[in-house]
Amino acid sequence: MTLTEQTPKKVAIIGTGVIGNGWIIRFLANGFDVVAFDPAEGAEEKTKQVIKNAWESVKELGLHPEADQNRLTFVSTMEEAVKDADLIQENVPERVVLKQQVLADIDSHAKGDAIIGSSTSGIKPTELQVQMKNPERLVVAHPFNPVYLLPLVEIVGGESTNQENINLAYQFYEKANMKPMIIDKEIEGFVADRLMEALWREALHLVNDGIATTEEVDKAITYGAGLRWAQMGPFMTFHLAGGEQGMRHMLEQFGPALKLPWTKLEAPELTDELKERVITGCESHAGERSVAELERRRNEFLVKLMDLVEEYWP
Amino acid sequence: MTLTEQTPKKVAIIGTGVIGNGWIIRFLANGFDVVAFDPAEGAEEKTKQVIKNAWESVKELGLHPEADQNRLTFVSTMEEAVKDADLIQENVPERVVLKQQVLADIDSHAKGDAIIGSSTSGIKPTELQVQMKNPERLVVAHPFNPVYLLPLVEIVGGESTNQENINLAYQFYEKANMKPMIIDKEIEGFVADRLMEALWREALHLVNDGIATTEEVDKAITYGAGLRWAQMGPFMTFHLAGGEQGMRHMLEQFGPALKLPWTKLEAPELTDELKERVITGCESHAGERSVAELERRRNEFLVKLMDLVEEYWP
Repeated sequence: MTLTEQTPKKVAIIGTGVIGNGWIIRFLANGFDVVAFDPAEGAEEKTKQVIKNAWESVKELGLHPEADQNRLTFVSTMEEAVKDADLIQENVPERVVLKQQVLADIDSHAKGDAIIGSSTSGIKPTELQVQMKNPERLVVAHPFNPVYLLPLVEIVGGESTNQENINLAYQFYEKANMKPMIIDKEIEGFVADRLMEALWREALHLVNDGIATTEEVDKAITYGAGLRWAQMGPFMTFHLAGGEQGMRHMLEQFGPALKLPWTKLEAPELTDELKERVITGCESHAGERSVAELERRRNEFLVKLMDLVEEYWP
Repeated sequence: MTLTEQTPKKVAIIGTGVIGNGWIIRFLANGFDVVAFDPAEGAEEKTKQVIKNAWESVKELGLHPEADQNRLTFVSTMEEAVKDADLIQENVPERVVLKQQVLADIDSHAKGDAIIGSSTSGIKPTELQVQMKNPERLVVAHPFNPVYLLPLVEIVGGESTNQENINLAYQFYEKANMKPMIIDKEIEGFVADRLMEALWREALHLVNDGIATTEEVDKAITYGAGLRWAQMGPFMTFHLAGGEQGMRHMLEQFGPALKLPWTKLEAPELTDELKERVITGCESHAGERSVAELERRRNEFLVKLMDLVEEYWP
């Protein structure tokens, strides 16, 4: 099955906290019909306020021709929320037992061909699908705050998820103007949160050990590596730090630092195999572009980005 | 002593690899006289090529009225390089013994009131200054690639460094249009590299364990957290992810994740004291601005940043 232009696009959002509301705005902005359910007092009013605050930004990013804030309906039961939905996105608090129950409940009311996505930040889909009657349609679809702006969504299937549903989920999120990334091996925290959590834990150690304040940690990122990571991740960043020889030189120069206590995290052994994987990965990502050419583009980007940072974070 | 407009501004750059050349460009662009020394064959020609490639960017960023590429002189001995310099920046390979020797050599030829900065990425200044006759004038001044664009420089003194020299170094780097950050407690990797190295090691684990390719790791950062880190570091990012209650709510929601295997890095115990330090740190950094107000600014920033990323990294 492939999603077409004619495919009905109705999504249900279960749980309307920061992440659930983010999904609502993203789907509305991309021309979907949205049904929302959250038992909390005043949830609908809160969501409407959040939409109002965010709409200017999504408008500037570019609205789908059929985008309409009024295509949102709040309902008062789970059954009503999910019964006609093609995609149901679960966003309840990060507790395994709660999520298992809610997902089983969603599953029991959803129509046969609906896909169910969980926004969990790090719980494995195999663990989430244990109580579902139709576990083959459960994927983790982990977004990033603000969901209506940041394009990344990690898609991860569990042991019982079938590949067709993963592909279908991919197409749904792509229609919502996202950059989906399918992760084949499920691990706690997936990929992005493992990276973020490593940075986060090290940041907490620094504050805990009295080395830096929260503001100093933020400054260390904002004026340094953070500027580069917006355009390139850690690998291409280091590829460019290696000079003409790129990552190959970088690993020679900074490989030994992996043995030093530069973080509380133990490094993997830098075997020849890992080295080659990293070097050829960067070289293939860089493609035909030389390090000097990549540098010129990075420089143009950084100059403009720093102007932007100056304007918005003086 | 305070640097004034009249203070002579002559710097010596020892070692002209990626970082040394980056310093040369930064100092030239900010109106300094620069003397460079590197015994490697063809170093001068290489540096001139690098300056040529980067000059357009520093020009766009804004040149000092007295900035001049011709204010660079290459010399053939250490003595000649350092004898008249007010600030000497050491950028030799990251090996303790080599750096100790070079720094002692610099020290023996430098004039009495010169400051000596080491670009080391993570070696403690106390270790670097052991062979110096005047260790009180050694600071670590750790920059970020590309040094001529990224503003952060970490300044760290060793056990023998005196405070006045730290303050003087701060003023020098500020005159070179940087955002210096003084780190009071010296630890391996200082602050920024501890954060980067944690992310880097986790990234290597992911590649080593076959979970993601280098390109997927980069994508996970670029389309997700990296966009936010350009404007805010990890703390303010999470402050905004916590909704109206900011970091206080965030720690309630994601504090328990610190116990989960979301990275290979062990987290510190989230004690009440650490919680308070993190929460009040974020609240004081946010100042009068509500989370909603910060969100609006972040959104405007992100929309523009994503346009920029789209343009430069299609």
